[in-house]
Formats: sequence, C-alpha cells, structure tokens
Amino acid sequence: MLAQLRGSVIALNKSPFASMCPLPLQAVRLNDRFWAPRLQTNRSVMLPSQIQQCEETGRIDNFRRASGKKQIDFQGIYFNDSDVYKLLEAIAYAIAYEPNASLEAQMEAIIAEIAAAQQPDGYLNTYFMFDRAKDRFTNLRDMHEIYCAGHLFQAAVAHYRATGRTHLLDVARRYADLLYDKFGPNGQPGACGHPEAEMALVELARTTGEARYLELARCMVEARGRGVLGGSSYHQDHVPFVEQREFVGHAVRHLYLASGATDIVLETGDKAHLATLDALWQDLIQHKLYITGGAGSRYEGEAFGAPYELPDDRAYAETCANIALVMWCYRLLHLKADPIYADIMERALYNGVLSGISLDGEHYFYQNPLADRGGHRRQKWFGCACCPPNIARLLASLPGYFASANPSNQLYLHLYAQSEIRFSTSEGDVSLRVNTNYPWEGLIEIEVLDAPSHTTTLFLRIPQWAANATLHCNGNASADTAYPASGSYAKVALSGAPATIRLELSMPIQWIQSHPHVQNHYQKVALVRGPIVYCLEQADHSNTDPWDILLTHETTCQPEERPELLNGVTVLTGRGVALKRERWAGKLYAPYQPYEISHPVTITAIPYHAWANREAGPMTVWLPVL
Amino acid sequence: MLAQLRGSVIALNKSPFASMCPLPLQAVRLNDRFWAPRLQTNRSVMLPSQIQQCEETGRIDNFRRASGKKQIDFQGIYFNDSDVYKLLEAIAYAIAYEPNASLEAQMEAIIAEIAAAQQPDGYLNTYFMFDRAKDRFTNLRDMHEIYCAGHLFQAAVAHYRATGRTHLLDVARRYADLLYDKFGPNGQPGACGHPEAEMALVELARTTGEARYLELARCMVEARGRGVLGGSSYHQDHVPFVEQREFVGHAVRHLYLASGATDIVLETGDKAHLATLDALWQDLIQHKLYITGGAGSRYEGEAFGAPYELPDDRAYAETCANIALVMWCYRLLHLKADPIYADIMERALYNGVLSGISLDGEHYFYQNPLADRGGHRRQKWFGCACCPPNIARLLASLPGYFASANPSNQLYLHLYAQSEIRFSTSEGDVSLRVNTNYPWEGLIEIEVLDAPSHTTTLFLRIPQWAANATLHCNGNASADTAYPASGSYAKVALSGAPATIRLELSMPIQWIQSHPHVQNHYQKVALVRGPIVYCLEQADHSNTDPWDILLTHETTCQPEERPELLNGVTVLTGRGVALKRERWAGKLYAPYQPYEISHPVTITAIPYHAWANREAGPMTVWLPVL
Repeated sequence: MLAQLRGSVIALNKSPFASMCPLPLQAVRLNDRFWAPRLQTNRSVMLPSQIQQCEETGRIDNFRRASGKKQIDFQGIYFNDSDVYKLLEAIAYAIAYEPNASLEAQMEAIIAEIAAAQQPDGYLNTYFMFDRAKDRFTNLRDMHEIYCAGHLFQAAVAHYRATGRTHLLDVARRYADLLYDKFGPNGQPGACGHPEAEMALVELARTTGEARYLELARCMVEARGRGVLGGSSYHQDHVPFVEQREFVGHAVRHLYLASGATDIVLETGDKAHLATLDALWQDLIQHKLYITGGAGSRYEGEAFGAPYELPDDRAYAETCANIALVMWCYRLLHLKADPIYADIMERALYNGVLSGISLDGEHYFYQNPLADRGGHRRQKWFGCACCPPNIARLLASLPGYFASANPSNQLYLHLYAQSEIRFSTSEGDVSLRVNTNYPWEGLIEIEVLDAPSHTTTLFLRIPQWAANATLHCNGNASADTAYPASGSYAKVALSGAPATIRLELSMPIQWIQSHPHVQNHYQKVALVRGPIVYCLEQADHSNTDPWDILLTHETTCQPEERPELLNGVTVLTGRGVALKRERWAGKLYAPYQPYEISHPVTITAIPYHAWANREAGPMTVWLPVL
Repeated sequence: MLAQLRGSVIALNKSPFASMCPLPLQAVRLNDRFWAPRLQTNRSVMLPSQIQQCEETGRIDNFRRASGKKQIDFQGIYFNDSDVYKLLEAIAYAIAYEPNASLEAQMEAIIAEIAAAQQPDGYLNTYFMFDRAKDRFTNLRDMHEIYCAGHLFQAAVAHYRATGRTHLLDVARRYADLLYDKFGPNGQPGACGHPEAEMALVELARTTGEARYLELARCMVEARGRGVLGGSSYHQDHVPFVEQREFVGHAVRHLYLASGATDIVLETGDKAHLATLDALWQDLIQHKLYITGGAGSRYEGEAFGAPYELPDDRAYAETCANIALVMWCYRLLHLKADPIYADIMERALYNGVLSGISLDGEHYFYQNPLADRGGHRRQKWFGCACCPPNIARLLASLPGYFASANPSNQLYLHLYAQSEIRFSTSEGDVSLRVNTNYPWEGLIEIEVLDAPSHTTTLFLRIPQWAANATLHCNGNASADTAYPASGSYAKVALSGAPATIRLELSMPIQWIQSHPHVQNHYQKVALVRGPIVYCLEQADHSNTDPWDILLTHETTCQPEERPELLNGVTVLTGRGVALKRERWAGKLYAPYQPYEISHPVTITAIPYHAWANREAGPMTVWLPVL
C-alpha cells in the first residue's frame, strides 16, 4: 500500500474500486521549462493577486460581515464565498508542494475569518445571513448554497492534507453534518442546482473516514430528475442520473456531477452509475468535445450543444468546464486505468485549460474560442470569478496529476515532464529522474535512481497520438516490447536500481479533421503535434490575415524551437497560400467560383494555449485545405 | 397626387422626403398560386386561431381585468397587450383587402374591451394596473410599456384606414398625448428598451396630421445613448443613434429602431439620421444577413453577431427580425427608390419570413435555422408570442408591398405575382393585369387595361439576380431598352391603354458562395433560383442524410414543377454524391484524408420556406462542393 504523504489531489488509497491512487503532490518535483515556470507564476503572481482581488471585491469582507466583525452590506454575487474557498484550496496545494510562509499565513488568516462566520448549527454561507437567514435552503436550484458548501469542503480537505491541521476540516464537518441531517437518507430529498458538493463530500468521507458524507453525496446525485430542482436539463434534472446518457445543459455542472458520480463509483462500484458515466463519456468524445479539450459549446446557458455543434468563433468552452473535464478524466483514469482518459486529460490541460491564463499570470479567459477576430481578450478578473481560482487550484495541484501507483505499488506515469519522482512504499523507496523536453520533444529518458529490488512493473503511458513509439531499457529494467502500442500503458519490468528507460514518442505534425457533421469544419484541418494544438495568429503573419490562409496538398510543416517566443515554444512553420479577397470587397454573397490564390504565405503556427498574449488580432485553429 | 384609398400599410402621400407612396392595400388583387392561398390561410386559419389563442391565454381577459369587468389576476407576460394589438392590426389589413364580417365583428369586440380599459388620463397598459399602477413609466428599459403603446397606435392607424372609424384612433391619440407630455420636447428624456413606438408615432402623425407625434418619435430616437436606458448595446443605447454605425444587440429592436428612424427621415429629411441608416444598411448587407433574409444570428440576447458570424444550425434569425427587415426595406425603398431595398425585402419575404409559418397556417417558427437535424419544429403558439401575430399582419398587408406611385403618379412595380392592379389618380384610372407564374417562372406579362392617355413612366423592378432580363412592349408602351440592367427599375413609357409589356427575368439556378470570413461556409454553396433559396430535406432523400450530400463540379441542377408537393413548388433536381461516413463511426476527430464518396445521389432541393412541413429530419441550406 502506498504510504500517504503530505498533500494529495484525491486520496484513493482506501477506495475499494480504484485501480490506482495518485501519488502525493510533492512526490513529483517538476523542474521543466513548461510547467515549472507556470507553477511558479501561480505562486508568485496568481495566488497573491487573487487574494488581493478577494479582499478588494468584498469576498472576504462578506465573512467578516457574517461573523459580525464588520457592519456592511453583502458584496457581489450570492455564490462569491466559493471563490474564496477555491483560492484556499489552491494555496493549500501550493504549500503542500512547496512551503511558502507568506501564502500560508494569508491562508490561515482567511480561514480564521471563515471559521468565525460559521453559525452555531454548522451553517456557513455569508449571503444567507441576518435578514436572509430565513431563506436558507429554500432555493437549492438557483442559489448555489450547497455548491458553496462543497467548495468549503474541498478547501478543508486540501488544507488538512497540506498542513495536518484540522480547524478548517472541523468547520467543514460541522456544516456537512448539518447537510446530512437535512438532505441525507433521513432528511428531505435535496441537491444543488450547481453540482460540486458531490465530489467534495466523497473526499470529505475519504479524509475523515466518515461514511455518512459518501451517503449524502449519493443522495444528492440520486435526487436529480426527481422533481427537486424543477426538471430542467440546464440543471441536469430532466431525468434521474442513472438514466442520463447525454451531456446537456450547463457544461460545468454536468461535468462536476459526472465527476462526483465517478467518486461515488470509486467507493461503491455502483454499476448503474457507471453505465451512465460510460455513456456520457462516449457522448462527449464522439460528439461534444473541442479538439482543444474544451467542453460546452453554447454561450446561451453556458451549455453543451447538440452533437457536432462545435462553433469556433463562438465556442464557449469555459475554462471551468475544461478544468472540470480534467478532474473527471483524472477520476475515470483512476477508476479504470484506461489511458484514453489520460489522453483527453492531457489534451485539455495543454490546450483548453492553459489558454485560460495569460503567460504573465495576470489575465484570464472565461471563454476559449477556437477562432477570433482580435476582440476576445483575457481579463484581470470577473464579476462571476469562478475561472481564476479554478485554474489556480488546478495549476497548484498539477504535480499530483502526473503519476499514480496501483495497490501493488506499481507506478503509472500519465504525463511527462522534466522531473524527479520520489515516493515511499511499504516495500521501500522509489526515485526516478525523468529527462525530457516534453511537450516539445517526444524523447523521454527515465533514470531509476532507487527502487525496491523485487520485480515490479512500471507503466508508461503511450498517448493515442504516438504511433511508432519505441521503448528501450538498460540495467535492471526490461520492456515488454520495443514497439509499444499507442493508446496503451507500456510495461517495463523493474527489479531495483540502477536502470535506464528510453521512451521515444514520435511527434509528427498531424493534420486533424472533424467528423463531417461538424458542418463548420468541412475541408478544414487543425495542426496538432504531440499534445499541443496549434493556431495561426495575426502577430506572426504581418501581411496576411490568418483567416485568409489556406493549406494546400503541397504544404509541409516543420517544428521549430523558438526559445525567445512566448516564453519559449516550438512553432510549426510551413508554406500555405493566401486567398484572394478582392472580389469580396463590400460583398457577403456572390456566385460560386473556385477560390483564387493571392500569394504564398509562410505560416507560423503557435500553440493554441499561448494565443492572445501579444497584440490583438485574428486567430484561427481550423485551417481550410485547398 | 395619388388619391388615398381605403387601407394602406404606410401612408407616405404627404411625406415630403418620400420618393414614392405605396398603393393602398386593395389596389393589388392577388390571384396567384403562391401568395393568394397564403393570404386566404391567414384569413381563414391564422387570424381566427390567433384570436382564440389571445382569448385562451388571458391576453384579452387582461383588458377585461383592467376595465374592472373581471376580477382576476394578470395573466402571462407583461408585454402581452402587444400581441392583441398586432393581431388587431392584422385583422384591419385583412378586412381592408377583403371585407369579412366575422373578423370585423371580432375585431370590434376586442377594441371595445381595449377602449374600456383606458384610464382617464389616457394611460393604457393592462399590466400596470391596480397595485402596479404606481410603477408606470418607472422601468422604461425592461417593461416594454412604450412598445405596447406603439403597437396600439399601429393597430389604431390600420383600423382607421381600414374602416374610417375613429374610436380606436381616439384611444391611441389620448395615450399618445399623455406620452407626448411625459417624454416629448417639454417632458423628460425617455424611450422604450424595445423600440417600436417610433414607427407607430410617425404613422399616427401621418394619419392625424398631428406633428407632435412625429416630434415625440424623434425625441425617443434621440434619447438613445444618453443614459436613459442604462447604456447597453443590447438596447442600442450604447451610443446616440446618430453615432451608430453597426447593428448590435437585440435584432428586432435595432431593426425596429432603424425603421422608426427611416420614418422620421421620410418626414424630416434629417441627414444625420440618414447617415446612420446608410451605415447600418451597409453593415447589414455586407456582414450580418443570412442568405434567407434572416437577421440576428445569436441565440444569446436574440442578437446580431459579429461580422460574418452566421452559424447555420444555431442561426437565430427570429421571424420577427426578418419581418422587421422587410418593414425597414420597405421604408428605405420609399425613401430612396433604390431597388436594392426591394431585392433584400423580396429575399426575406420568400425565405426567412415565410419559413416562420407552416403551410397549414397552424404552426410557427420563432427561430429560422439554415441547418437542422430534425429537432427544430414549428409550434402552435409561444409564451412570448411576438412572431405569430407579426407574420399575420405582414401577410394581411402583403398586397400593399407590391406597388407604389411617385408624386407624378408614375407606377413602380416592386414584386411580381399574378394579379390585377387598379387605382385612381387625379389624372385618371390605372388598371393593369399581371400574368406570371412568379416566383417559379421569370416571365411577366403586363396588360395595360386602362391608363391616362398622357405619357407616364412605368417602373419595373429588375432584381439583382436577374442578369439577361429582356423587355418587350406592344401597343401604347415602349421600353427604354430591351435589355434592362439587373438591380434597376426598367422604364416603360406608357401613353394610355391598351398596351402589353413582356418582361422576362431569366432564372438560372445559382450556386451562391459566402464571403470567405463566414468560416462555416468554406467551400460551400447555397442553391438559389430567382428569389427562392433552396435546401435539402430528409423527406426527399430516403437513403442518404442530407448532411452527407456534396455537390461536385459535374453537378448540374434543373428546375422541376411539382404541383403535388408542398402545395405546389418548383424543386431543383440534380446529381450529387454522398460522403462515405464509415471511417467516422464513433469518432469525432481523425487524421486528415480527402473525403471518400459512397454513392451518387439524386438530390431534390425544396424551397427553404417550405421545410419542416413533412416528417422531421435533417435539413441543410449550405452544401459542400467537392
């Protein structure tokens, strides 16, 4: 059994239906050029500025008001408590990964404000205080009350795992006990219009060993579709969860709900829930997922669209939905150990999630379109500020997503980056050094510095995109095959250190096409290399509008390292052509003519996640092929 | 000067800046196979059923409540009065065109309920009664109060013109006087969040000769962008009207506002307003107009999108917006006599407006998408029921859109249908018989049965799509040229009857392409013939999904008369190919391959306006070209 170290994103070490358990946060020490600087920016820029935003916008004052320390009006939106909780969760992960006295002190100060605001019966929501106390739990559908509670629980669990201190966990437990009494098996049917608490309650159960919280989570999932929330598909309340087969309505809500249900399956093995999860997964990956890992295509209702409804310039693809997808994939991966979940998780992480934050860590996207004319720019903050702390908590916890161990202490590597991985098992310590320039290069060399001497298996993810991968071992390691299949976990038998493993994932530039019923992608391709989706941006094409650029059947592209560009990226360069647009001056429609070419263009495709970090201008992911 | 006959859609005979004045409603007697049956359906099905809906949904009871005749709660939405007014307007046009004692009696009964609900000070809005009377005019932005007043004025004007009776007009005047006092030049700045009253007030001024109503309309247009309505572009309140250069926000609102401003320009010649109208027009036709004449592409906010943002399956293209476009075109046409306005008006009429109503007259579309999987079906009625009475009033008034006369009594024919046109001028009677099978055939023969003997000019619209038109005259008519230019009014000199004019508009099947920045239309075409836009529907393609059908460069299509189909349409038939979809089973993305063809397909394209009148199934207007 994997020893439980400080900090963990989800703790599955006792979950009976988990195939594996994530390594603790600090087991993976990232020292790469891609993620490590971003985690540093998170700690040094994002987290401090978000604390400041929460102060300046009255989000923390709302707690001071609730505890009677300040006589002021409630400020902002009724669900603003959740932003503070998410931020605390992020800080907890950050200090679990790397101690930081300043962040920790600020976290504890905020926690003190929160604890002081808790009511004698355990209730805690700064909106439903004083005059509004009478309205508690009267509008579960709209008021995000249990959603806020869920984020409190997540923060408390992360705080406890990071620090070992129980004072926020105690606050969470008191509130969870109240919720159990009200909405548990002996209470009234109830759930939140915005799912989230389901995941949180299962984690609270894992952390405290208190099975009632798991029971409550299950009651909440099963309350859907039974008339409690008004019956709308927006709230995933149109049918009971176990009858759901398609993603509908608000994307973040449905993905959080699916994540919570997956947590329940990890604990219970419930087959009816699992059948729904499998159907939802197929619906997502066959019909409703942007190539960037973005989810939820509609602005109206921040919702999933119909199958194949994946507009580019009006893609919603909310940062929070893309993060929710990562969280769901991560849970499914640990349930089933199927690398498809890591494939989609990686796709979202490197593209649709990461586009949510600027390179300087100071600006956020709420929506992540796949085409734009230059008007869509990141913002410092939002009135509804769900996305900024969500991306902060994901980045802070990211090292926890790289590796897991199964109950036999066999290690799975899901993601790759220059890093050191160290953890202890009951059979001894494991220490690896991963040398790679991933995601820009596919060569991954793993030095085994320490490992128990009995034979164990190391599982290395071979992404679906990596055809022709090769695997060679030296020392005490031996590979099952030198040519591991893409979309699998390659097996390496390891019997102690030293050993060297050399995995080479080929990274050709792929032209990816959409199902023909994605009507807006007819005869178009996206350029993808490894996990990275590329786009054309105006800043690299001074004389040609990216929306006028076509690829031809003669176009070939090459990767090119550009250390000076966008904090260091590998771009794709090649020759395309520009469409002649003169005949269209002043016209929207005209009789059909084959497109005429104006001039050849040297294209420079940048990673999608890095767009909108320079001067504003047109961008597009999908490129027509002439 | 054109003698004022009974009924007229807008009365421009005294408007100093009008280039021409519409003929009265009953001057054009339609006896064609396209419009005449639809007008009959309007009278026999739509109007009676809408009266019934207004009764059953409490819309008329709301007036009975307001007058104290019934002690009930207000029913429905706060702007529901407007639906009753629009319906009255429709009935007034219908009886102006063709007497109908039953409809007239029902109309008068409803008018009696309305008149009884008017308050002593002239106020009339059934929502703001009793407890809510204190809230009158306190939320002009959201509550549609002046919008409802506007529809009352339109109904009153139509009723007066149809019947010569003044009792509803008197109600309107009393309310308009109150509005003048409150929001006129000596009152406070005010306008409605939903424009409409501007048009109505100018018409009220034309009908009553009361200049104050024109003044008030102008005050309302000029109140925008000055802080009265909160400053949102949704309400077209982001900048003053004279600074507006782009269509933004709610489409119906902006098009009604533009229509009202055009009415003001027709009376005042105001150059600043005209500059805005010209810029808005260019923005619309260059960037924001569906090929069906649909306007407003976004579901969110029922709004205009960015330039070239014209999604097909998620087109909003609200029936009311498309009708508003017709109303605006009609006003611009009479201002400038430029046939481009008739071109766009005709495009909207035959496509995006007419799709709003089922062939049986019993079901309505609110949104008019250009592609669908079969889920979008017409409804009997809507909670927000703006569209049904809007299409009813347009159909009822349609004969008024066909022809106009300029101040020299020269006749303009804008639209063509089998019809008789008779009207009187101070110089004598005019009588024409138009023989044509338009819109299915382009041959138009005009027999001049009666005309003043002095020489006058007859202007015949040559649509923009009609290249190679020919024009031949006999008897007392002679054409300027036998080959009139498309997008012009051809001139025929006429010196009394008899005369025969033979205009032949060629109607080739056109493959129309969109500006390349309409990203979803890359390498796609729409099939258009004459004014009719075509689509493929599942019902005509038993073995192939229309979304899988491609045209090739070898495809040629032929028109084919199908009298038994969809009440008689001309379809387009030809050979296309079906895409092989096997490789896509279960996949959303895959490496690029040129599309493979499964089998040849005989395509049958039906008029877009007639879709969704058979079994539900996929439909698409835009077809890929292989």
